[in-house]
Amino acid sequence: MNFVTKYCKIASCFSLIVLFLNCEQKDSKTLDSKVSDYNNEIEAKIDSIIPLLTLEEKVEMCHAQSKFSTKGVERLGIPEIWMADGPHGVRAEVSWDDWAYAGWTNDSITAFPALTCLASTFNPELANNYGFSLGEEARYRKKDIILGPGVNIYRTPMNGRNFEYMGEDPFLASTMVVPYVKGLQSTGVAACIKHFALNNQERWRDKVDVYVSDRALHEIYLPAFKAAVTEADVWAIMGAYNKFRGQYTTHHELLTKKILKGDWAYDGVVISDWSSAHSTDEAANFGLDLEMGTGTDGLGLTTANHYSQYYLATPFLNKLKSGEIAESVVDEKVRRILRLMYRTNMSENRLVGRANTKAHHNVARKIATEGIVLLKNDNNFFPIEDKKGLSIAVIGENATRSMTAGGGSSELKPKFEISPLQGLQERYKNATITHALGYHSGKSVYDEIIPSTYNADSLKLQAIEVAKAADIVLFVGGLTKSHLQDCEGDDRRQYNLPFGQEELLSAIKAVNKNVGFVLVTGNAVEMEWLNQVNGVIQTWYLGSMAGHAIADVISGDVNPSGKLPFSFPKKIEDNAAMSFGETSYPGVDLKQEYKEDILVGYRWHDTKNIEPQYAFGYGMSYTNFEFKDIAVDKDSYTKDENIKISCQVSNTGNREGAEVVQVYIGKTNSKVKRALKELKGFSKVNLEKGTSETIEVSIDVNKLAFYDESISDWNLEKGDYTVYVGNASNNIFETLKINIQ
Amino acid sequence: MNFVTKYCKIASCFSLIVLFLNCEQKDSKTLDSKVSDYNNEIEAKIDSIIPLLTLEEKVEMCHAQSKFSTKGVERLGIPEIWMADGPHGVRAEVSWDDWAYAGWTNDSITAFPALTCLASTFNPELANNYGFSLGEEARYRKKDIILGPGVNIYRTPMNGRNFEYMGEDPFLASTMVVPYVKGLQSTGVAACIKHFALNNQERWRDKVDVYVSDRALHEIYLPAFKAAVTEADVWAIMGAYNKFRGQYTTHHELLTKKILKGDWAYDGVVISDWSSAHSTDEAANFGLDLEMGTGTDGLGLTTANHYSQYYLATPFLNKLKSGEIAESVVDEKVRRILRLMYRTNMSENRLVGRANTKAHHNVARKIATEGIVLLKNDNNFFPIEDKKGLSIAVIGENATRSMTAGGGSSELKPKFEISPLQGLQERYKNATITHALGYHSGKSVYDEIIPSTYNADSLKLQAIEVAKAADIVLFVGGLTKSHLQDCEGDDRRQYNLPFGQEELLSAIKAVNKNVGFVLVTGNAVEMEWLNQVNGVIQTWYLGSMAGHAIADVISGDVNPSGKLPFSFPKKIEDNAAMSFGETSYPGVDLKQEYKEDILVGYRWHDTKNIEPQYAFGYGMSYTNFEFKDIAVDKDSYTKDENIKISCQVSNTGNREGAEVVQVYIGKTNSKVKRALKELKGFSKVNLEKGTSETIEVSIDVNKLAFYDESISDWNLEKGDYTVYVGNASNNIFETLKINIQ
Repeated sequence: MNFVTKYCKIASCFSLIVLFLNCEQKDSKTLDSKVSDYNNEIEAKIDSIIPLLTLEEKVEMCHAQSKFSTKGVERLGIPEIWMADGPHGVRAEVSWDDWAYAGWTNDSITAFPALTCLASTFNPELANNYGFSLGEEARYRKKDIILGPGVNIYRTPMNGRNFEYMGEDPFLASTMVVPYVKGLQSTGVAACIKHFALNNQERWRDKVDVYVSDRALHEIYLPAFKAAVTEADVWAIMGAYNKFRGQYTTHHELLTKKILKGDWAYDGVVISDWSSAHSTDEAANFGLDLEMGTGTDGLGLTTANHYSQYYLATPFLNKLKSGEIAESVVDEKVRRILRLMYRTNMSENRLVGRANTKAHHNVARKIATEGIVLLKNDNNFFPIEDKKGLSIAVIGENATRSMTAGGGSSELKPKFEISPLQGLQERYKNATITHALGYHSGKSVYDEIIPSTYNADSLKLQAIEVAKAADIVLFVGGLTKSHLQDCEGDDRRQYNLPFGQEELLSAIKAVNKNVGFVLVTGNAVEMEWLNQVNGVIQTWYLGSMAGHAIADVISGDVNPSGKLPFSFPKKIEDNAAMSFGETSYPGVDLKQEYKEDILVGYRWHDTKNIEPQYAFGYGMSYTNFEFKDIAVDKDSYTKDENIKISCQVSNTGNREGAEVVQVYIGKTNSKVKRALKELKGFSKVNLEKGTSETIEVSIDVNKLAFYDESISDWNLEKGDYTVYVGNASNNIFETLKINIQ
Repeated sequence: MNFVTKYCKIASCFSLIVLFLNCEQKDSKTLDSKVSDYNNEIEAKIDSIIPLLTLEEKVEMCHAQSKFSTKGVERLGIPEIWMADGPHGVRAEVSWDDWAYAGWTNDSITAFPALTCLASTFNPELANNYGFSLGEEARYRKKDIILGPGVNIYRTPMNGRNFEYMGEDPFLASTMVVPYVKGLQSTGVAACIKHFALNNQERWRDKVDVYVSDRALHEIYLPAFKAAVTEADVWAIMGAYNKFRGQYTTHHELLTKKILKGDWAYDGVVISDWSSAHSTDEAANFGLDLEMGTGTDGLGLTTANHYSQYYLATPFLNKLKSGEIAESVVDEKVRRILRLMYRTNMSENRLVGRANTKAHHNVARKIATEGIVLLKNDNNFFPIEDKKGLSIAVIGENATRSMTAGGGSSELKPKFEISPLQGLQERYKNATITHALGYHSGKSVYDEIIPSTYNADSLKLQAIEVAKAADIVLFVGGLTKSHLQDCEGDDRRQYNLPFGQEELLSAIKAVNKNVGFVLVTGNAVEMEWLNQVNGVIQTWYLGSMAGHAIADVISGDVNPSGKLPFSFPKKIEDNAAMSFGETSYPGVDLKQEYKEDILVGYRWHDTKNIEPQYAFGYGMSYTNFEFKDIAVDKDSYTKDENIKISCQVSNTGNREGAEVVQVYIGKTNSKVKRALKELKGFSKVNLEKGTSETIEVSIDVNKLAFYDESISDWNLEKGDYTVYVGNASNNIFETLKINIQ
């Protein structure tokens, strides 16, 4: 399967092409050899710079000078590095040395959909467009590094930061992160994939110590990072807050030194998360290159000098001076930092920046629309036709609440944000749209400060009145991006819907039978209310164009094609991580063991035969698709071959639509524990009504290997495998047997 | 006389050379035609951009978005413009929307000497080095425009801002501003010459209405601006606060529209001073392109929207929409702004920035050292040899007070600043340096808040003790950069030395006969104390390297060669502007008339035969020079010829030194009022002891024209002229007669 589209190729090579076409060179070197020449030239330049630097200057390059910048070497014209939080847009400017926003008025940007939505599109070309557009906005904002994307695996619905990640499956996350990084970096802005690694919950994130098997580490938690490094050549990576096997991950002998910089031959910069460094020796020796955000303020230092107290600042300098740490250690870090500069702010070939362009808005809308997942659609509740005489009651706080504010560091200051209510109002010109808030979230789920103007009972009564008077109710609810919900810094504490939404839904149902739920979350939620509603669309946090995208799908202007990037368990205990008690999640005495091991998400549901509410890969359409002629090209393969799975997909319904062919493979009678099946390939196809297309998905046989702890390496088991082809992890049309020799 | 050195040529053409050599073009076009092609290409690009812009976007480009930046057009990738106050270095970052410093720690730079010092060098090559070095620092700080240099003519010693300007003579200021601007702009940073025009005092600057003859305007007050425009192709110019003949100068029908953009064919951007715009119609029609800093806060507007209330914001937009102002008016402004961008932040050929380099420090020190003027040196008081047993008492607040802090918008945050005391301590390793403060300036001359620890009497007594015990006293006094002294925003109120310095000097003299005065000012001061001291060096505000430069000269490491760029009258009434009473200065009822007309500075002293304390062009050396064989190449010239004056200069003293050959010309029996003589050429020559060099100064005959108000044009009067050759305006070695036919 090859997702590298023409656009993607162009974008990723753009800067080099510009470089070499600049002077219309007439030689016939291949692009590969030109890239190699260019890289050699940069390394030679770095070789010539390092001896010019004093030890103090080298050390100053290895830590922050402000909340989001690092010192250059001004006497030599080596620039500063400026970073901005991502990954959904370029964050607003914060103050030099505190977290307050700086009050600038030039930092309103395009808010792109959250990465859960991008993952739901199952469309890598959109990931490339996403990265490229974000890169253009970062360039306009004069940023050299965007702190994203995040590819931590969705382990439990409790994780407050899941909305920033790309779901529970390592293959899906890998497939989406590569074009995102390539698109972003093609503009001359570094991506910084995060958080490396095992930052799978926010609760106690700064101190929890994770224990997980080598096998789960390599098979589940590292593949997306590895793909970003080895396939997308990502230029920066961010360490995580948590520990792994007793050592902080930001400077970790196994993770950073051995695996990342050793096995994967990563040549970029390792950046700490903000305050995730904890040791000069470990930072020096285990591969941290750039220390950011360490909170030394508490030591009573003034703002002017506290950066000099960082682990990679004066303490590092002193050890270098005394010879306790060899100068080659800092040289290696400086080399990586200079290399990043030659790729970004010292590159002569960066693209010109743009922000808030029509193109960016279109990309944001396209991703938002294509990522929305139609979960339930009894009696074709959706789409809703815009017709005279029809009245639609839009009820629920998320109809008007900003979905870009809050959530932590990914919070954005968009130039505009179309709310669901506004999007529907602009789309429905014939039908009548009415509105009631219905409920109010207060400040947080535990701190229910409801303004006096928002009396819970009166809000409910008002909503019931509005619902009663309408033909259709669209309930726009879900979670918020507040503390203890979908928000960085801590985890959710409840799986069911907060703020009395379930009770409100019941009351509405009593007066109106035609209720559709627009579920705005970045996480799975309990759905005991599901029988109260006729239809459900899962919308995620959709950014600037949220309301338009929602109206696109509800109106039928766009046929939904999103697929769930993670399972929705019926009960929280059905989630693998949650089924082993507190030692597995959230940990006891700040230690936790990933007891589900490799059986994360649908791997657990499949293998343990626990039916989810909605399965990974699931998502409905307004049209119907049929899968025919599902076949593999051979019965038996050797390790250097590709398995080619083909099938004919037909759109047998009444409108254009897109479907995702999903190929899972499982090992029959494995010598080791296995998931029943694992996603190994997919392909999204768009079909006019009445048309068919034969899709081929190609899978490298080596991708069937498991991580064998007995040899600390990947091991391709021979024998029989089962290929599952379907349009969801729980909706398989055909299983095929193959053999690996 | 041709001051354009090889270095200067290289710097000024650098960006274009880079552009065209980039691709190793092989055609044989001349550089001129390449420049022309390049300019045509830019104009064509601008032609293609303007139609893409909405009216709102065009208007947004014409006014500030923050204290020091303007909006770009983000959807098209048109960048913001970022400016910084100059002209002596790149000012520290201020907050987005208030004047408080932003608290950044990356904005410490090299402080270059004040422009009075640069003018005193009489060395245009140093002006070029100054501009180039400052440009590199601006590039490192990501600034597109440096708000400087200032070339307002020194009219009276009361003007608080004289220290930022280049003296009283239009030819000297013109000769120095051109290479400064070329050097600065060769880095891809725009110079913004200021303040256009007639901002010759700070008192009531925001409302005083200046009346001056057309002749004085063109002959005295405009030439340096004209040179910057027509010879240096400056890219930006800043309007002034004051009015001229009833109209604000920032949008002035005669100054901005007719003279600047009409007669001089200026193609750059006219920027308001911060709050100097007062009218939408005048701004629109009389040539203001970019409005900055207008203080609309007082209207009760929030910070978020007050920029939209600028004269060139919503009120301008409304008039454009209604058709009251034609769209071509805004198009013309946008064209100029885009042109500036193609020269700066949209140029692909900007130089890489550097800051705080050894080279910049050396340039700052060289200018500082070469600009120091030796005024008095009885019995070779200076230089002072560093010998064992010698004790030197350094007394006076300016020995330790920062000279870069204060002064208004030109205030700097240098990475370091060597105080005079520190410079002397570092230089004198054998002699003993002692120190006493002696006096304290308090907060200002009228607001003498002296900290309790600084009791004036005890400071004085302590200084007398220290002076008594020393062999030599160096009194480091003068003015400060506080309100009502050498400081923007208001004028001085006293001509004599403040803070009790004269009394202190007398007391010191009573105990020690060997006193040298290190006079730190940006203005002339009364010198009734002159007989109390054996030597005087005038040091100006010298920036980062101040103390080293002062030690260079005092020790004799460098032989002083600076010449006064303005006259030091004995009494304030001897100054031309001050001799006509309040209607001439500071004005009555906010009106003032420049009654001295063209007789500014030495023109007044010469013509009225009023002996100054120290004359324009005056400055001593540690060696002696003889002028011989002073001659003109012909007796008679036509208007298209050059007058070539030659003379042999010999260094007849005991050490290397530099001398400035100054050529003044006066019209004998003119039909109009004339100054006795005017500076028309000069040449600085450095000579080893015992060597000679023949210097030639070439003067375009047309430069002898006067501005004839009867024809509103320059008029070259025929007949006899007198050429004066000397090394000061009051020290002429030879007068020669010539005739213009």
